[in-house]
Amino acid sequence: MTGLRTDLYELRMAASYLRRDMVERATFSLFVRRLPPQRGFLVAAGLAEALAFLEGFAFDEGELGYLRDTVGLDEATLAALAGLRFTGDVWAVPEGRVVFADEPLLEVTAPIAEAQLVETGVLNLITFHTTIASKAARCRVAAGDAQLVDFAFRRTHGIEAGAGVARASAIAGFAATSDVEAARRYGLPPSGTMAHSYVEAFPDERAAFRAFATDFPTNPVFLVDTYDTPAGVRAAVEVIAELGLTGPMGVRLDSGDLAALAVQTRAILDDARLTQAQIVASGSLDENVIAALVAAGAPIDAYGVGTRMGVSFDAPSLDSAYKLVAVGDRPVLKLSPGKATLPGPKQVFRDPTGADGDVVGLRDEPPPGDREPLLVPVMRGGRRLADTDPAGEVRAARGRFDADLAWLPEPARRLADPEPLTAAVSPALTALHERVSAQVGRGGTY
Amino acid sequence: MTGLRTDLYELRMAASYLRRDMVERATFSLFVRRLPPQRGFLVAAGLAEALAFLEGFAFDEGELGYLRDTVGLDEATLAALAGLRFTGDVWAVPEGRVVFADEPLLEVTAPIAEAQLVETGVLNLITFHTTIASKAARCRVAAGDAQLVDFAFRRTHGIEAGAGVARASAIAGFAATSDVEAARRYGLPPSGTMAHSYVEAFPDERAAFRAFATDFPTNPVFLVDTYDTPAGVRAAVEVIAELGLTGPMGVRLDSGDLAALAVQTRAILDDARLTQAQIVASGSLDENVIAALVAAGAPIDAYGVGTRMGVSFDAPSLDSAYKLVAVGDRPVLKLSPGKATLPGPKQVFRDPTGADGDVVGLRDEPPPGDREPLLVPVMRGGRRLADTDPAGEVRAARGRFDADLAWLPEPARRLADPEPLTAAVSPALTALHERVSAQVGRGGTY
Repeated sequence: MTGLRTDLYELRMAASYLRRDMVERATFSLFVRRLPPQRGFLVAAGLAEALAFLEGFAFDEGELGYLRDTVGLDEATLAALAGLRFTGDVWAVPEGRVVFADEPLLEVTAPIAEAQLVETGVLNLITFHTTIASKAARCRVAAGDAQLVDFAFRRTHGIEAGAGVARASAIAGFAATSDVEAARRYGLPPSGTMAHSYVEAFPDERAAFRAFATDFPTNPVFLVDTYDTPAGVRAAVEVIAELGLTGPMGVRLDSGDLAALAVQTRAILDDARLTQAQIVASGSLDENVIAALVAAGAPIDAYGVGTRMGVSFDAPSLDSAYKLVAVGDRPVLKLSPGKATLPGPKQVFRDPTGADGDVVGLRDEPPPGDREPLLVPVMRGGRRLADTDPAGEVRAARGRFDADLAWLPEPARRLADPEPLTAAVSPALTALHERVSAQVGRGGTY
Repeated sequence: MTGLRTDLYELRMAASYLRRDMVERATFSLFVRRLPPQRGFLVAAGLAEALAFLEGFAFDEGELGYLRDTVGLDEATLAALAGLRFTGDVWAVPEGRVVFADEPLLEVTAPIAEAQLVETGVLNLITFHTTIASKAARCRVAAGDAQLVDFAFRRTHGIEAGAGVARASAIAGFAATSDVEAARRYGLPPSGTMAHSYVEAFPDERAAFRAFATDFPTNPVFLVDTYDTPAGVRAAVEVIAELGLTGPMGVRLDSGDLAALAVQTRAILDDARLTQAQIVASGSLDENVIAALVAAGAPIDAYGVGTRMGVSFDAPSLDSAYKLVAVGDRPVLKLSPGKATLPGPKQVFRDPTGADGDVVGLRDEPPPGDREPLLVPVMRGGRRLADTDPAGEVRAARGRFDADLAWLPEPARRLADPEPLTAAVSPALTALHERVSAQVGRGGTY
């Protein structure tokens, strides 16, 4: 079960609320305080995982026993936890949408103990997936018309993170993944042919290529850099001729000066009239390396992007927060230096023309002008409002990202020194913030 | 099941080996090519997870169906995969030991298809855990006598990564974790009291503190920075007096100038004769911030370290590799630029006095002098050689790290501009490398 998938302080706070019959509905708002320096935009992701977490949240007997014996919770609290499920409502920005700092990605409204207990899991999942999708999106911007394949699984933060990275990068436009379980789970094309070890396991490259193409004649991709790249390409060409292969095929370059080797490789392939053979590049790639290869005109058809995307190497997390903004009908905030929050349930309003930046306002205020509200209801009474086919969710999210990428102004979209859009605060939210701040400042109840 | 927890190319290569009756035993060596610039040493971790992965590796019916229908594997290969288990031997550096670049952390010897199929999972787990343990170890170096608590769960790369971070940081000397499931699983003390939202859920700070200390009178830690830190500390002091609390207790500072606020807070607590009250600091901490606070003499008793440790913010992965080094009795290597490998099964020999660096040699060569071999057999015929109590494993690993940290020379141990030890190559391994390279260079079989 999942009840212990939380921080201890959530359990202590929830126990205290339950014991005091504090059953008021609270609203928490999840947002990113500021973007990393190298990000002009974020891609919302992880909502499906977060909603599944909420639907499954419950304590089993073993977990309750641990809370009794080790944490020391009393029997009345344990009985309350035994029956506890998440029964709240959730509004969220759909996956694949482009978002910016200070914009709520998700808002939970639930009895305060429930809303508190799920904080850690929801914040974890949305932060992780949004971090990766946002990094993968930069690779998408860099790659232009070339295909991207997720090769990150071997160095993600654990086995399960591999599946998360495959999903998040698919939302950002990656065409395939090396992670077979992720491919199965999310309906993605699995991708991969051979490693250096395969070449080394045979007496020479030709023997390895011949064996592989015999076993997998459909679109074989030969790894040509084990010993010497041009010699490896020529070995592949000879085996292709020997076996009479004429369909889709390719070679993969995994080391060395990829731009120069791609030109050399393309020439060898074209000389052999293998114009349909594709060139795949891999090896420590990220959006900057890809952009440089594209700018150099390297004839590369597909990029296998691994570690640097899969851990979001230059910005492996986001300054995300899950903050209480209302208890019952009472809007609340905190004033901690550098971490102050805006009160009340919110909405993000977007100018579909891209001429003006987003506006963050109150959830129940009317959209200014013909702006589009980004947050939509996704869960009511603890149940998801839409069906949950994992492959369909990823496809829909990718479609939203495609549309938002086309909408995104160039300063936010560009890779170097991007300028993210900043969200304005609506007059109604500003007025509420001033009123609640003044009450807190006077030390009064509010 | 776990059979699809691999990259597609592992499956393709394994299928090719099985189809060709290539059942020779192969040895793969897992090592880190080079350390990130900000690391003077690594802490080996993740072995228990990797061995559990190996013991559980198998394909279930659903997975085989996917491989038939979507990947297109033939029935003979599927039948072979259906019966496949990992039956190999593993040598490894025990968890908690300090290691450096080019030193094998783990070596797998198994029929080549098995050894290939498990590559992705083993490389993933060892890389992830070693990355985090090595970052956490720097926090341990920085903190001196102060306690460290893992607060990372909310921003690790997924829910399961949270448990991995708790375990890896415990190996590196963290005293407790906020992640309740991880605490249960690995026998760690769970830690945590209240968030800002708890304070905000009550009419004022005093009411919140009073409620919390009434519900949890054993070692309450009051979060004092929701509105104004010194006022928050005074509110805590008043509630402590009002309730007559005299046992262990503390306050937590989560924002602002931690050094100055800690001094101010200590003075308020001491004036109230609460000398036993501890000060916990948190909020965007890493080893550099902790070292600066320690150097400034800030009276902080414990540090809650979250995101920056839990994603290893400045170096979120390692340049790790899992490379074929022998097929049967035949040592192999690759010559790819920047990624060349040394042939043959290996051992790392360490000078216990710390006067000389490590030596990487052949597994079966005698230790030079009175050096200690680091790799030990941990799995034979697919079964672990030691018992597998998770809490005991973490304790033992932490003990090894404590010993190695005391052994570690200062240039490698220091936080700023560390100088890692470099491993020398033994004469026997050098000779083998030259012999095999020459054979590959001549294009002969070897």
